[in-house]
Amino acid sequence: MVTILITNDDGLYSTGLKASYEALKDLGDVYVVAPAMQKSGVGRSISIMEPIRISEVNVNGMKAYAVDGTPTDAVILGIHKIVGHIPDIVVSGINLGENISTESVTTSGTVGAALEAATQGSAAIAISLEVPDVDKFEFVFKPFDFSFAIKILRKLAETIIEKGMPEGVDVFNVNIPSKPNGEVEITRLARRLYRTRIEERLDPRGRKYYWIDGTEIEDAEEGTDLHAIRNGKVSITPLTLDSTARVDFNNLRRWLL
Amino acid sequence: MVTILITNDDGLYSTGLKASYEALKDLGDVYVVAPAMQKSGVGRSISIMEPIRISEVNVNGMKAYAVDGTPTDAVILGIHKIVGHIPDIVVSGINLGENISTESVTTSGTVGAALEAATQGSAAIAISLEVPDVDKFEFVFKPFDFSFAIKILRKLAETIIEKGMPEGVDVFNVNIPSKPNGEVEITRLARRLYRTRIEERLDPRGRKYYWIDGTEIEDAEEGTDLHAIRNGKVSITPLTLDSTARVDFNNLRRWLL
Repeated sequence: MVTILITNDDGLYSTGLKASYEALKDLGDVYVVAPAMQKSGVGRSISIMEPIRISEVNVNGMKAYAVDGTPTDAVILGIHKIVGHIPDIVVSGINLGENISTESVTTSGTVGAALEAATQGSAAIAISLEVPDVDKFEFVFKPFDFSFAIKILRKLAETIIEKGMPEGVDVFNVNIPSKPNGEVEITRLARRLYRTRIEERLDPRGRKYYWIDGTEIEDAEEGTDLHAIRNGKVSITPLTLDSTARVDFNNLRRWLL
Repeated sequence: MVTILITNDDGLYSTGLKASYEALKDLGDVYVVAPAMQKSGVGRSISIMEPIRISEVNVNGMKAYAVDGTPTDAVILGIHKIVGHIPDIVVSGINLGENISTESVTTSGTVGAALEAATQGSAAIAISLEVPDVDKFEFVFKPFDFSFAIKILRKLAETIIEKGMPEGVDVFNVNIPSKPNGEVEITRLARRLYRTRIEERLDPRGRKYYWIDGTEIEDAEEGTDLHAIRNGKVSITPLTLDSTARVDFNNLRRWLL
């Protein structure tokens, strides 16, 4: 029997988590283990300074486990405490909001959870749906259309279950455009997505505080995930855990001296 | 004038942060911007759900800026709010505890801060000192010997300031063994460092909670950062921000169908 673990970083109440469940529930033994509350932007954070609790709950018609930690914590506890063995596949998402470029690969909780799953030895998919920025944190109320994302996720999961992950690929990072044109492109990560912006505000007592924000960069190189999404294509980016730079170590040795 | 930004993930009071300051203080304009408290294991977490405050303080004889966020937040606010332009080099560390393998590159706050700095367009070094596990969080009291680490950091920073970062390298991840034999090796990331372990405990009210823990993996492949550190060598690993898997996209397309 195939074992599937589903998690996310939007928290247990996200309709995107339910969508993954709907896509995969009849493919095997499906476990849902996710942060109790939204944990966006936490990357592959792992709780080494705080202990973690687990609650068994029923949410949106799913039996699920709520973890009061990060998405990575949910994967670790999900595998070692709840499932009890390495799952055949871990799916992180469907995230509300795209996760593209080298920036999101390291700052996204959705991708972070998938990287942890791959490290633990499981096949791993991170999947995200492009939604308008202002809707990203309205997941409880907004009726997003997951039907196309569910089809893509199910097909990819079936392929992985049948053939295993391709050699050299640790995680598939999948992004679904808000208005898909039906095409699928295998992409590389765009280098940047945002131009950083800091917004300074005053609290009610007149003291400064800051919001980190960013505006999206305009130009997208062909072949990147950003370019695919901007053009209505599903983007599938194969990721590796090994971020050692591919440079000539002999040259580097000379450079160092 | 060269501009240098120093941060860490052990917090503003760490003697390792002071050691970086001592190594670099006469190389240019040096800014110290770091989390107010320890933020280990948070990777490249970025605060997008919470606003951040900054306090100007004097700590261990340094003028410094305390940020109540993550190491990545400290780099972003340090660059865009405090320094006001992209620094020539950002140094994250000296961390108490080694940061080796693909696991720590994505979960370490020290490395996360350096990845953010590189994304922002700065040269970037993450530097960590191997210390016994039990001492990792005792940074206020323990008199660690940073003298060798300071020498290595200063030399590398001088080389980068003189020549710029080598093409294809975004971050140097430097690890200093606790008992250095004087050798320096350019390494690739080890695949794994820990075998995950979960410890179940009962709180005073008899309810379960969990600690994520791990035991170090025994065998280290030659050429990896883990192998270098185990053999008393300084490990310098060149990192790239681009974790797209280097696989044949045509093969991958066929695999997907």
